[in-house]
Amino acid sequence: MTKVVIIGAGAAGTTAGLWAKKTDRKCEVVIITREPYPEYSRCGLPYTISKVIPEFTNLMEHEPAWYENFAKIDLRLETEVIDIDSKAKTVKIKNIKTGEEETINYDKLVIATGSHPAAPPIEGAKEKKGVYFLRTIQDAMDIEAAAQKAKTAVVIGAGLIGVEAAENLVEKGLKVAIVEFLPSLVPLMIDPDMAELVEEEMVKHGIEVYTNTAAKAILGDEKAEKVLIENRETQETKEIPADMVLIGAGVRPYTDIAQKAGAELGTTKYIKVNEKCETSVPDVYSAGDCTEYPDFVTGEAVPQGMGTIAVRMGKVCGINAVGGEAKMPPGVLLTRITKIFDIQIAAVGPTIHQLERSGIKPVIGKITGSSKPEYFPGGKLIRIKILSDGKGKILGAQIVGYEDVHQKINVIAAAMQSGMSVYELEWLETCYAPASCPTWDVLTLVAEPVIKKIKRKK
Amino acid sequence: MTKVVIIGAGAAGTTAGLWAKKTDRKCEVVIITREPYPEYSRCGLPYTISKVIPEFTNLMEHEPAWYENFAKIDLRLETEVIDIDSKAKTVKIKNIKTGEEETINYDKLVIATGSHPAAPPIEGAKEKKGVYFLRTIQDAMDIEAAAQKAKTAVVIGAGLIGVEAAENLVEKGLKVAIVEFLPSLVPLMIDPDMAELVEEEMVKHGIEVYTNTAAKAILGDEKAEKVLIENRETQETKEIPADMVLIGAGVRPYTDIAQKAGAELGTTKYIKVNEKCETSVPDVYSAGDCTEYPDFVTGEAVPQGMGTIAVRMGKVCGINAVGGEAKMPPGVLLTRITKIFDIQIAAVGPTIHQLERSGIKPVIGKITGSSKPEYFPGGKLIRIKILSDGKGKILGAQIVGYEDVHQKINVIAAAMQSGMSVYELEWLETCYAPASCPTWDVLTLVAEPVIKKIKRKK
Repeated sequence: MTKVVIIGAGAAGTTAGLWAKKTDRKCEVVIITREPYPEYSRCGLPYTISKVIPEFTNLMEHEPAWYENFAKIDLRLETEVIDIDSKAKTVKIKNIKTGEEETINYDKLVIATGSHPAAPPIEGAKEKKGVYFLRTIQDAMDIEAAAQKAKTAVVIGAGLIGVEAAENLVEKGLKVAIVEFLPSLVPLMIDPDMAELVEEEMVKHGIEVYTNTAAKAILGDEKAEKVLIENRETQETKEIPADMVLIGAGVRPYTDIAQKAGAELGTTKYIKVNEKCETSVPDVYSAGDCTEYPDFVTGEAVPQGMGTIAVRMGKVCGINAVGGEAKMPPGVLLTRITKIFDIQIAAVGPTIHQLERSGIKPVIGKITGSSKPEYFPGGKLIRIKILSDGKGKILGAQIVGYEDVHQKINVIAAAMQSGMSVYELEWLETCYAPASCPTWDVLTLVAEPVIKKIKRKK
Repeated sequence: MTKVVIIGAGAAGTTAGLWAKKTDRKCEVVIITREPYPEYSRCGLPYTISKVIPEFTNLMEHEPAWYENFAKIDLRLETEVIDIDSKAKTVKIKNIKTGEEETINYDKLVIATGSHPAAPPIEGAKEKKGVYFLRTIQDAMDIEAAAQKAKTAVVIGAGLIGVEAAENLVEKGLKVAIVEFLPSLVPLMIDPDMAELVEEEMVKHGIEVYTNTAAKAILGDEKAEKVLIENRETQETKEIPADMVLIGAGVRPYTDIAQKAGAELGTTKYIKVNEKCETSVPDVYSAGDCTEYPDFVTGEAVPQGMGTIAVRMGKVCGINAVGGEAKMPPGVLLTRITKIFDIQIAAVGPTIHQLERSGIKPVIGKITGSSKPEYFPGGKLIRIKILSDGKGKILGAQIVGYEDVHQKINVIAAAMQSGMSVYELEWLETCYAPASCPTWDVLTLVAEPVIKKIKRKK
């Protein structure tokens, strides 16, 4: 009977536990988490602010009792790992509430410790009250409570968490400003030209957007009252009112336990794993936000940090830990999506900036079209950009629009994962019906300008 | 200067003309059609009945003058081809209105004559007034006018045209019954088990559904008043009221001109073409509903009859006719979609019945899930079935649900067209966000039961 100990009850850890059980019903699974809750959706947290998701417990798929009674998993809430001995194959744990310590042995260990919000060097961010990060249910509870009293909010960082939090603060009734250091919104996801529609949508819903702007200081006596910002080009400064401040400026991995176990970190300083999600230490796996994984396109290790990848790695860990055989694809596509008000934003593969950093200069095709046939009422705007190498290999895509964007990016993800070229994409036999989508979907039309440019270069 | 003569101004013919011009601006293009209109969307016709598409002219992308002035195409409306000499490379045409005849030469000919509704042997269907087929704008005008006075309608045939017409007759305010000879709705698209949700949706909207039922006779004095139907199993008969009857019982190709030109028909008696859309006669191409093409999965020729394939074949013809180089993929996937009231129905590849006719017994996976994460409000039901061979090759898929179905089927189409297996599909890195779709999309989850069954068989 294999005993699998899992550190972390997030998407990766819990999925690992459930797949271990699914693969070998007789295995023993222990899941350890510092938090007082079993797995819940971190991605759903922004929506608890506006009560689009009415209760925090909605985010939990299962009650603690379910793990014990149904899944037969030994779930240790509010428990932290204080030491690890990967030779003796033991972990020393401590109940945060009672202080009780215990040493438990494992046959296989899964490190799924996740990450925590990065704290950028903004004056006053540490000391002042009213400054929030969003990572846990407790964070979301604090933000929701603060948002009930606040009239104005400043969100620092226009990544996924930032823009989603901004939307939900608006829905809650606050006057919101968003400050992004880079020149455009959601910069790790889409290129500046694609972000224009996103900015329009945010402005339309009353958000003040400051891109290419540094947040210099949180002003106020004890509590945040204003944020001092500085335009990075003009050096112009401005103070914007902020009854509360939410910082979404990226994350840092929890790697201390992995390092204690002797697991190697990779080039990005996240935990390094292979296709089987094995770390460099025998019988120790790792999965989720604390790991890096090769990018499908560049082959370079990236801190992937995505829920979809976390559950896939968790599945791989769980199956392998009990003697099954599972493998991640050789690289991650980073297929990503979000929806802000009425607009959807999606990407797969690196952005132009990310490609160029890896020394790749992509050929670009971009078109704007409609989700439905021209003659059918209700079609919505969709803009799509595709990146290719000089031979027609698809390197990435970005889609912004008001309908169907999420499943369209999945089409490109499937195309990329199976090695489809732009020449094949041009003839992809998509579906068509008046009320659904046109004979030539933008997905196929976007191949034409790319092919034209590749030909011209030859 | 190449002169391209195109017979037929439907999607295939018109696309051929536009791509010929796009490929070689100096070429001469003549498009000949019997109808008084240039290209319009036949697929949109059912929606003119309910005025969801308000004007018949909405279906036309361009006015006749556009072809002359902008596209520089010689468009001959209300003109029929009365003879053809593929050795002398001439066609003899006749203006239907004036009776004027003319012989025009061609360098390349494109036969895109399309198809016409099949007339099943139903007693009284030919003689009685109030019996309609839906293929042309004129048909739609007649049906729309009749529907203004009628209170009851019977639709015979529950294929795409049948179910879409039924929906639009309901929207128009009629009491509608639909009669299908085979045991389930849209039988060429989805298997009986997948059609259950479609039947529920139609019944919910007040449609009387009679499957496994033959329409025996149209009853009434001069005009249709009732339809006599007979259950094929119980032999029970019934008369159902029908102020009007709409027959959507498949189509037959127009191949007379092709045969006059000496072009070979294929096993299905549709026009045979190769990947370049060449017929067996030099310099004569064919495209669209009058052609057959190999099925991607079985390799057997099928009368494909789809708008998406028509425009793709038209593009191939147009490019090749003026000396360019274009090729269809080796087989057609028949990626198909429709939407009836709130439900979307999609398929790609053959149904189980069609596979079995080709001697293939598929391994089947089927699941029901939600379009959004469980914890996010507003997720909608989606049922997906996937067909595989014993080695994991994807042979087809069917999806029925209330959201996202059209683009989900495109994902499977991309997977199939690029040879992705169910083993790869299981790990496809789809996108995830609370407001969009779950970490494990039904698209990937459906691979699991298939893989399980394949393993069990080994």
